[in-house]
Amino acid sequence: MTEFRAPLRDGRFVLYDVLDGESHYASLEACEPVTRDVLDSILDAAATFSEQALFPCNRAGDEEGCRLTDGVVTTASGFKAAFDAYREAGWAGMIGDPAYGGQGLPASIRLLAGEPMTTANMAWTMYPDLSLSAIHALGMHGTEAQKKKFLTRLLAGEWTGTMCLTEPHAGSDVGLLRTKAEPQADGSYTITGTKIFISAGEHDMVDNILHLVLARLPDAPAGTKGISLFIVPKFLVNDDGSIGMRNGVSCTRIEEKMGLHGNATCELVFADAIGYRVGAEHQGMRCMFTMMNSARLGVGMQGLGVMELAYQHALPYALAREQMRSLSGPKNPDGQADPIIVHPDVRRMLLTQKALLEGGRALIYYAAFKSDLSLYGADASKADAEALLSFLTPIVKAFLTEAGFECANHALQIFGGHGFIRDNGVEQLVRDARVTLIYEGTTQIQALDLLARKVLLTQGKALIAFIAEMKSCAADARQPLPDLAAALDALAEEWGAFAMSIGGRAATDADELGAAAVDFLMYSGYAALAYFWVRMALVAKRSAHRDAFLDGKLATAEFYMRRILPRAQAHRLAAEAGAATLMNPAPEAFAH
Amino acid sequence: MTEFRAPLRDGRFVLYDVLDGESHYASLEACEPVTRDVLDSILDAAATFSEQALFPCNRAGDEEGCRLTDGVVTTASGFKAAFDAYREAGWAGMIGDPAYGGQGLPASIRLLAGEPMTTANMAWTMYPDLSLSAIHALGMHGTEAQKKKFLTRLLAGEWTGTMCLTEPHAGSDVGLLRTKAEPQADGSYTITGTKIFISAGEHDMVDNILHLVLARLPDAPAGTKGISLFIVPKFLVNDDGSIGMRNGVSCTRIEEKMGLHGNATCELVFADAIGYRVGAEHQGMRCMFTMMNSARLGVGMQGLGVMELAYQHALPYALAREQMRSLSGPKNPDGQADPIIVHPDVRRMLLTQKALLEGGRALIYYAAFKSDLSLYGADASKADAEALLSFLTPIVKAFLTEAGFECANHALQIFGGHGFIRDNGVEQLVRDARVTLIYEGTTQIQALDLLARKVLLTQGKALIAFIAEMKSCAADARQPLPDLAAALDALAEEWGAFAMSIGGRAATDADELGAAAVDFLMYSGYAALAYFWVRMALVAKRSAHRDAFLDGKLATAEFYMRRILPRAQAHRLAAEAGAATLMNPAPEAFAH
Repeated sequence: MTEFRAPLRDGRFVLYDVLDGESHYASLEACEPVTRDVLDSILDAAATFSEQALFPCNRAGDEEGCRLTDGVVTTASGFKAAFDAYREAGWAGMIGDPAYGGQGLPASIRLLAGEPMTTANMAWTMYPDLSLSAIHALGMHGTEAQKKKFLTRLLAGEWTGTMCLTEPHAGSDVGLLRTKAEPQADGSYTITGTKIFISAGEHDMVDNILHLVLARLPDAPAGTKGISLFIVPKFLVNDDGSIGMRNGVSCTRIEEKMGLHGNATCELVFADAIGYRVGAEHQGMRCMFTMMNSARLGVGMQGLGVMELAYQHALPYALAREQMRSLSGPKNPDGQADPIIVHPDVRRMLLTQKALLEGGRALIYYAAFKSDLSLYGADASKADAEALLSFLTPIVKAFLTEAGFECANHALQIFGGHGFIRDNGVEQLVRDARVTLIYEGTTQIQALDLLARKVLLTQGKALIAFIAEMKSCAADARQPLPDLAAALDALAEEWGAFAMSIGGRAATDADELGAAAVDFLMYSGYAALAYFWVRMALVAKRSAHRDAFLDGKLATAEFYMRRILPRAQAHRLAAEAGAATLMNPAPEAFAH
Repeated sequence: MTEFRAPLRDGRFVLYDVLDGESHYASLEACEPVTRDVLDSILDAAATFSEQALFPCNRAGDEEGCRLTDGVVTTASGFKAAFDAYREAGWAGMIGDPAYGGQGLPASIRLLAGEPMTTANMAWTMYPDLSLSAIHALGMHGTEAQKKKFLTRLLAGEWTGTMCLTEPHAGSDVGLLRTKAEPQADGSYTITGTKIFISAGEHDMVDNILHLVLARLPDAPAGTKGISLFIVPKFLVNDDGSIGMRNGVSCTRIEEKMGLHGNATCELVFADAIGYRVGAEHQGMRCMFTMMNSARLGVGMQGLGVMELAYQHALPYALAREQMRSLSGPKNPDGQADPIIVHPDVRRMLLTQKALLEGGRALIYYAAFKSDLSLYGADASKADAEALLSFLTPIVKAFLTEAGFECANHALQIFGGHGFIRDNGVEQLVRDARVTLIYEGTTQIQALDLLARKVLLTQGKALIAFIAEMKSCAADARQPLPDLAAALDALAEEWGAFAMSIGGRAATDADELGAAAVDFLMYSGYAALAYFWVRMALVAKRSAHRDAFLDGKLATAEFYMRRILPRAQAHRLAAEAGAATLMNPAPEAFAH
């Protein structure tokens, strides 16, 4: 049975040695100050909680799943106890406003503390993490009364939240939703409709659940411009804060899924349920985006967590499993065979995991810092940080989840037949990971967001800034790492030219956007990781205390640039083939 | 609920229009003659059987799985009835020697007839298909008495066979196996040991199961040179052919797996079980390879089947599901939204499936024809056909299964959240497909076989012949399809140079083989498909009866060459980075 250990060394390497987290946190204003000691103690505590409370019930989540009986969902063994421990330790209120019981820490700290949790048990971690989105939405758009009544309870970990967008006919196309909100005389609304695929939509861990629901007012315009946001509690709440009557919302079904069995994916029926509007009429999509952007970084973190846990399965197995002799002669002559880590292709699969995982960690930590700066940075830097965060969010979400699924499959392949059977826990990772490419906006949706809104609509503002950072890093690396520096510099030039060439074609044919988007996003992910790998290699190269860990960084940087980065070229060539290759065939020509 | 229809039009296009199957079958000697009428009626019957008997129980296989009670395995609803129908229709004896009840048809016919079966229900089809391997082995290496006693029953479909290689510590490294065979005074052996992951190892469909078991004689040399092959029946067989005592082999466990639940994956314990040697002492690996080569084509066909069934899910969904408007303006103005097939990236995923699927079909049919020619061709052509078959077999096995897994995932992505839930049957395809990259030799094992044994050891004999065919096709296409022809010609040159450059490096460092092998195999798969796509495009271009189907061929050829083939470059560049990028890091440098 694989053990899970939070990767504290690598996390601290990125946090302090690569991204200079101490200076970062010292630079923030108007939030709780964070010293290195404080941060380390938070990360240590998160690691211990994840290792001791969450990982041990990860398989129970998969095997027992959730049970729905008479509208009540029972979670797997250990899940409720872990949530009680989470609440008691105060994890639920890390990022909230101190006026409502939060600890006022910058958002990156919550993301960093959440990393070992989602790594150890992704299905469990979604119960508290869906609350984060509700905390964001209420914090930004709630009234004082809503904050007192609802936000305080979320920050105390007494209740949890959900995000209710999807309906059977309205998935990626949220604008099609039909759930109705009728205004009542007392200022509340009655909500009626059916929502599906609601993660953590019903469960037994807390006394109340607050559903954040998108619905239409009677006079609402069609599409996304006619959607408003409502808070619909499972139980109504009396003015003294005590729990009142059951509201008109019920769980009518939980989905049988490929994976993520530990999290209840619910169909929720709202029948004249009482709700309270959050934010202005018809501004629900804006409010929801407040939730979605942080949720998208959270799903990117799920991708990273999958990579980490997959690697923690694959590496010990590759070191222990003995099959066949090295082609260059026995390496373990006293054993029946050599450990499979001697075989070049096993190393290729391990290094692919390591490169995507550790590069991905640098990317998401960097994005998390931009998130802090956009809220708490010096005023002059807020807009730039916000632009970079907006640009990186779809890359983090889509690229890290695609990479997570790939890496889980590499781990399974290293186990061979032993990976396909359930005993070793690797196939669960593949099944769990698969949904991360879909929810919170599919890879396709992220790709359009990146290319159309974040790059072309802004005339490439954030991309240009990021490319400038790459070129500056390349200049810095020229002396100690000439090959890596030259490759990075050329890549930075090419990325800009690639975006320009798509923009040029898209000016006359909007389908060029859709035809290039996913390949552009994947290219961008590989390019961004190249930047972080050169930065990491530079830190390793310049270190006065070179050890196996830092040697590994240098070797992996070299591996990444030479064996993974060529994939970017395949994506660029495919995208540059243009839209006609996709749009010309008539629908009938797809049949056979 | 998706319907399944065997893709008869595409199959016949490849079979007759592209590969000139009529001339092929007319050229065979010493086997039953096959006219187009005969072949069509076989394929029609296989289609009907697959559509009506196999596809309807495919989900039951997944959901009910297999149950083991007191050593007895019960298969899912509908499985036994389908096997009875299979036996009664005479499918079991298609390829066998008429002297023992077979129909003496060439091997390709069985593979073609098996295509819709494995497409409709991969888990079920493995029960009869494991027998094929036993039929091959007994046909080639069995004694007259063994053929009369055992082969006749397999050809009648009364009993089934298995292949028992893997042991807990001996997976890819078969040479480590420990199962013992003790000679007895009567010429039989007693077999003792434990085998795992035995597909169709125990079930309720037939009265007896014949296990083909690899084991070691007492005086056997270590490794693969000391392995012999034995036939071990579940029930002993009396001299009059009646079933006798239960033999000392029992199913002690069936694996809980990620997918393929409908097939029983068994742990078999042999305790002084009576067995009969097949072939010479210590020649078991040679005999087993007789079985494995045909089994590897069979697993390649599973990859093709996954692609076909995935596409049959994805295409109707993309035509029916309405989400969002086309970026270039509404295409379905009266509907709530446009069907998602208007979106470029949905088309990209569909065309990727179509390109890999239809190109893969041409590849495996071509290989099947070489298999016929190696057995029944004119004497002068047998050796060349055998060499090409040997060269193509690892490509067929590994590339088509990798493509199958990719395509199943594209289908799931097109369904979005509706693909992740079990109701729509797409996620089953992803789970079922995953094992095809592992069993019968992993992608890694196939890649080493291709590069080391089939290319470098033969000085590239078959590769050179295949490249010559590509160049000849490119010359033929120069006039009507100049761009495709030029790309194919350049690719043919490059493939040969790529192999030579690896060979050069491997001459001084054997690890260069392992470091390049998987990338070389994937490159080879993409290159081979490019050849078949140009051939198919040529047929379409020259047809006097152009219709949507043939237009689709031309469009897909263009799509393949411009948007898929660039992946080959990423593989070539990665492989040419050399072994040092993989071998340099010390084992400790992998930790973090």
